[in-house]
Amino acid sequence: MLTKPLRGIIPPAITPMIDNDTLDIIGLEKLLNRMIQGGVSGVFILGTSGEAQNISYNVRKELIKETCRIVARRVPVLVGITDTSFSESLSLAASAAHYGADALVAAPPYYFAPGQAELIQYYNDLANQLPLPLFLYNMPSHVKVMIEPETVLSLSKNPNIIGLKDSSANGVYFQKLIYLLKDDPEFTLLCGPEEMTAEVVLMGGHGGVNGGANLFPDLYVALYNAAACKDFEKLAELQSQVLKISLSLYNIGKYASSYIKGVKTALNLMGVCSDYMGEPFHKFKDAEREIIRKNLMDLNIKSDDL
Amino acid sequence: MLTKPLRGIIPPAITPMIDNDTLDIIGLEKLLNRMIQGGVSGVFILGTSGEAQNISYNVRKELIKETCRIVARRVPVLVGITDTSFSESLSLAASAAHYGADALVAAPPYYFAPGQAELIQYYNDLANQLPLPLFLYNMPSHVKVMIEPETVLSLSKNPNIIGLKDSSANGVYFQKLIYLLKDDPEFTLLCGPEEMTAEVVLMGGHGGVNGGANLFPDLYVALYNAAACKDFEKLAELQSQVLKISLSLYNIGKYASSYIKGVKTALNLMGVCSDYMGEPFHKFKDAEREIIRKNLMDLNIKSDDL
Amino acid sequence: MLTKPLRGIIPPAITPMIDNDTLDIIGLEKLLNRMIQGGVSGVFILGTSGEAQNISYNVRKELIKETCRIVARRVPVLVGITDTSFSESLSLAASAAHYGADALVAAPPYYFAPGQAELIQYYNDLANQLPLPLFLYNMPSHVKVMIEPETVLSLSKNPNIIGLKDSSANGVYFQKLIYLLKDDPEFTLLCGPEEMTAEVVLMGGHGGVNGGANLFPDLYVALYNAAACKDFEKLAELQSQVLKISLSLYNIGKYASSYIKGVKTALNLMGVCSDYMGEPFHKFKDAEREIIRKNLMDLNIKSDDL
Amino acid sequence: MLTKPLRGIIPPAITPMIDNDTLDIIGLEKLLNRMIQGGVSGVFILGTSGEAQNISYNVRKELIKETCRIVARRVPVLVGITDTSFSESLSLAASAAHYGADALVAAPPYYFAPGQAELIQYYNDLANQLPLPLFLYNMPSHVKVMIEPETVLSLSKNPNIIGLKDSSANGVYFQKLIYLLKDDPEFTLLCGPEEMTAEVVLMGGHGGVNGGANLFPDLYVALYNAAACKDFEKLAELQSQVLKISLSLYNIGKYASSYIKGVKTALNLMGVCSDYMGEPFHKFKDAEREIIRKNLMDLNIKSDDL
Repeated sequence: MLTKPLRGIIPPAITPMIDNDTLDIIGLEKLLNRMIQGGVSGVFILGTSGEAQNISYNVRKELIKETCRIVARRVPVLVGITDTSFSESLSLAASAAHYGADALVAAPPYYFAPGQAELIQYYNDLANQLPLPLFLYNMPSHVKVMIEPETVLSLSKNPNIIGLKDSSANGVYFQKLIYLLKDDPEFTLLCGPEEMTAEVVLMGGHGGVNGGANLFPDLYVALYNAAACKDFEKLAELQSQVLKISLSLYNIGKYASSYIKGVKTALNLMGVCSDYMGEPFHKFKDAEREIIRKNLMDLNIKSDDL
Repeated sequence: MLTKPLRGIIPPAITPMIDNDTLDIIGLEKLLNRMIQGGVSGVFILGTSGEAQNISYNVRKELIKETCRIVARRVPVLVGITDTSFSESLSLAASAAHYGADALVAAPPYYFAPGQAELIQYYNDLANQLPLPLFLYNMPSHVKVMIEPETVLSLSKNPNIIGLKDSSANGVYFQKLIYLLKDDPEFTLLCGPEEMTAEVVLMGGHGGVNGGANLFPDLYVALYNAAACKDFEKLAELQSQVLKISLSLYNIGKYASSYIKGVKTALNLMGVCSDYMGEPFHKFKDAEREIIRKNLMDLNIKSDDL
Repeated sequence: MLTKPLRGIIPPAITPMIDNDTLDIIGLEKLLNRMIQGGVSGVFILGTSGEAQNISYNVRKELIKETCRIVARRVPVLVGITDTSFSESLSLAASAAHYGADALVAAPPYYFAPGQAELIQYYNDLANQLPLPLFLYNMPSHVKVMIEPETVLSLSKNPNIIGLKDSSANGVYFQKLIYLLKDDPEFTLLCGPEEMTAEVVLMGGHGGVNGGANLFPDLYVALYNAAACKDFEKLAELQSQVLKISLSLYNIGKYASSYIKGVKTALNLMGVCSDYMGEPFHKFKDAEREIIRKNLMDLNIKSDDL
Repeated sequence: MLTKPLRGIIPPAITPMIDNDTLDIIGLEKLLNRMIQGGVSGVFILGTSGEAQNISYNVRKELIKETCRIVARRVPVLVGITDTSFSESLSLAASAAHYGADALVAAPPYYFAPGQAELIQYYNDLANQLPLPLFLYNMPSHVKVMIEPETVLSLSKNPNIIGLKDSSANGVYFQKLIYLLKDDPEFTLLCGPEEMTAEVVLMGGHGGVNGGANLFPDLYVALYNAAACKDFEKLAELQSQVLKISLSLYNIGKYASSYIKGVKTALNLMGVCSDYMGEPFHKFKDAEREIIRKNLMDLNIKSDDL
């Protein structure tokens, strides 16, 4: 079911929660169904946007189970198994395989920062024991280390490593990946930051893992399609909307987590799911929520379900 | 059993392992017994030196159980519960209380870097739900955020927060803590880097959580005592040994984990325990091991058990 | 003579030197004439590639004079005045105006890192006293601070601030600039890293200040033109050459200055100018020079003058 | 006149200015005379506290001249020659020698961050051409690179390199220096942060280059003496005053330059000199000035000249 390369928009799903240990299952259903109706090419759970690290392992496994149930093979399900503990990554992967997910995603272990040689050994050791194919996940702001382009090239030779999601926002890095992997057309290269998805697709990247697709999945799918078809007129208009979302919803308050808070608050205002945030974070208070409400209305997005 | 403040040397125990999921129990017994015979004031398990983040939760809980059994209340046991997931921290804390540990230690959640206001709320929420008293753990190189002095002062008002271990190596930071907490003589201030323990104790700090005390517990206890008694002649000699250890055992290879690899290799050479390292790290190869062997002999330490 | 916006390739010229205090004037002539024959839209001297900070003020002023003489108004000359000292920036600017340069370029003061409010005041104070229009220069890796998008938007209202060169490699940053400045079509947005110039131009940026244009000016001009015309077939071929240059010439040795050393060595091998580097840097030794020679031949670039 | 090692307090003098290009000579006289009356062992001009990088070269040279005239060989004068340009460093050094200064101080070039091998070559090249002996200046927060302990050890073999000032606040670093240089008793090791001077002197360091000695030179001299004599009772009281100064005067506002602004404002309130700051910085506005005034009064320091 997983095409190679995987093209299009794969939203990094936020995790709807009622409290620190309870999923908002109804919200999860609405969230995932909206995405699939919006035309996404897959869903990615338990990434940074999914607050994976803040959620207990039991809840993470429940989320895998419920997501696979709801998605019901309509699109591929990618499951984050990023962990500092190798054994816990394997355990999450086993759950993902058991419940029918399609692929796994792992950023480097994030307490001690490994060197490049250690990363190569780590990812090969991991991929060789995984029951599903693996996407690398470059996330230096949280993990303190880049998966260098030459490291990715080396790891791409492992048949169980099938792609990479880059959340570095470093455009030089992405172009080096496209160049170094040009002889491996099945290796998927996906862009994290939605502000860069259009340009990355124009240059040969395969798609975006864009947080905004939690809110307006059809908009980001349209953006991807316009870039893939090189329809620059449409692209200009859509890119402008994407930037307006980015500048008006993701920077409220001065938190490292402002982006997730903004997305969850907007989803809650749109009636999709709860805006509860797992510890150590906390949902927006009223003043910040009002800013999101106003900015959301100002967006005036012609999304199918608004 | 836990004195306030807690004074002296509390080694951050490495975790002896046979493979990624199996403790080296015999090694653990030797390690802990040597520490206690060396005169330490407590042992701290599941810290950075203990590779806590790399070990599965089951093994972490087994380590808590075995440590409490071996130590058998001869000295206090401090248990690291640092986690990105609040619920998993609580679960580790429950195990610690169940098996008879004395206190808990927590660095900030380490994937997203929280701000100072978020840290205050997080630590108060945590301490209020913990079954044992809590030490803060300042570890900015791994966690990406300092627990600022004013934040520590605020948190010290929580009766269940009883001290702090500082591994920042920032001398200005430690002096600010001593000054700000001068009216709270029961609040414990411990120094991580062994190279700084002497000066910190001379200035009013309470002791050291020093990795080298895995190797030569009596040496670090003697260093602490010399500093506490202001015996400068003895101190000069001991400080020189401590620096020689630091410069000859902790910097072999260019790894973020060189220090732990050096300690584990030396312990293995000394017949104490296995040198296995949990993924994503790997024990030293022969060439590096030979350097440690040679440097260990050159140290010529008159430790009781060498 | 300076169009608004300034479009195309504006090479950040390296500074040909014979020794620490003597320009290689003959090399400078060859370098600049090749650029102009290659179709560049301007030349930028005394930037990072020009080792400006390493050169004495007398030599910087001589370089301004000689460059203006050689270029002789065939294309605009942009002069870097980045300095920690406001007065020295003004003095360099006065020389630039005196000798007939067209515009100035300034990164933030780079010893103390200013905050955004300080940057706004600094750049307005500076621009208001300058005899020529000013380009902002975003260079966080060297300067330790980003000129945030909102800061750029504020500064763009100053009539003497006419554009920005971004060397951050941060693609999200550049897209935010394009969006925020969409109502100011005369404000120039230029991309430093050559690996990103194509995508930035496709998305609405105006051109590139690309170091590789010291070596192969016509190649980078062709890249710009292909992007500006959306000729994707040609673009793919040219982008591939640009990446090959980047990956084979700029990363020899593990120096922060590897890129400049690579460019200077290649220029010397091509017979253009001296490869002397100002203190604290030093030109490549024979082994590294041989790698550059071999990689340069492997590039097999069909440049007009090779 | 320069003893080896140089012991005691050597204040890093702020630079009294009337405007961006004019020294406050009367303020400078008061400032330096208070220091000498306070018992300092030397004065250090054109360091970070002296805003050297923000001042034009002409004014820097005038400051050297006036300082040497005022000090009139009562204590040694150390002159900062830190620069990105080797030639400008030599030019400043020539002025220092001409006007009768005693030694030079240089942090690494601070635009491009050199590697350790480059630092060794740079400092040897520099020291070999200097007319006066050189102190190294470790300042990683501004310069982006540490002068590693092994690099210092190597450079200490150069007879014209006679010491180091460390402003890293890293206590492990300083202890490593003391250990590595224990066989070179003439090599001076000075501590930048005043909060750490006492402990560093207790452990074998030679003194402090402490910004607060601009304000209360006799207090810091007394702190040094108490540490040198191991008079712990006096030390406790003095250290407490030093920390109170640090916590109440240096952190007003959220500027990288808050410390210098605080010192200059306090000096102005004490009637010593102007509080003008060179671009890109600006003196405190009224609200911040009032906080400094209040906090200064609360200090209630029994300084000779208050």
